[in-house]
Amino acid sequence: MMNKIEHIGIAVKDLEVSNVLFEKLLGVPSYKSEAVESEDVMTSFFKSGPNKIELLAATNPESPIAKFLEKKGEGIHHIAFDVEDIFAEIERLKSEGFILINDVPKKGADNKLVAFLHPKGTNGVLVELCQENK
Amino acid sequence: MMNKIEHIGIAVKDLEVSNVLFEKLLGVPSYKSEAVESEDVMTSFFKSGPNKIELLAATNPESPIAKFLEKKGEGIHHIAFDVEDIFAEIERLKSEGFILINDVPKKGADNKLVAFLHPKGTNGVLVELCQENK
Repeated sequence: MMNKIEHIGIAVKDLEVSNVLFEKLLGVPSYKSEAVESEDVMTSFFKSGPNKIELLAATNPESPIAKFLEKKGEGIHHIAFDVEDIFAEIERLKSEGFILINDVPKKGADNKLVAFLHPKGTNGVLVELCQENK
Repeated sequence: MMNKIEHIGIAVKDLEVSNVLFEKLLGVPSYKSEAVESEDVMTSFFKSGPNKIELLAATNPESPIAKFLEKKGEGIHHIAFDVEDIFAEIERLKSEGFILINDVPKKGADNKLVAFLHPKGTNGVLVELCQENK
């Protein structure tokens, strides 16, 4: 079961510049910055009520975010849904015919277990499932 | 003030096909379909806890969604934030240097007053402000 939109991930070139921009846009400052070394990204989080905005910057040219920026430029990268039980949700979605990029959840930013769905199966939308890592 | 992510707008080619797909993805059916004639789009809404997913299909080739699909293909089109007072928020954002596509709010889908920010000023993200039309 999906509870809500947990966050929207936005690919940016320069985290410092975008932190200033999104603080002006949302009216609140970033409350956390965190590296995700397995993805070669630096993140920055903003709260928007029950939801979050996650800015994503590449930390090296091999980062998926570097490749995204090269291909599409800055903009919305993914949408993440908060799920009750990520293992059950992965099984449910596989049985519905969705293509999972991660069959087994991995550690993401913000103390989450995460798994991505392939955008080929979801109308071009990169969908992330995430569950609080208890 | 921005209260939460109100919805994510997703551009799709075929609303019937995508309604089936998103019902499988989200585990709930679309609860409403609504035409927005001023934008030449047909919409379909899904609930995800406090948030919504809005599918957008073009009703003719002049629709902004037809142009988006031609240029970028299916995928996330915009992010909409629920605001307390859209008139005050437009003034606040203009004073912060953001470029408004709509200086004056217009009627959107789902009984909302809406205004869009130009993606040039927001890291390539098309941002919508929306307020319940009382």
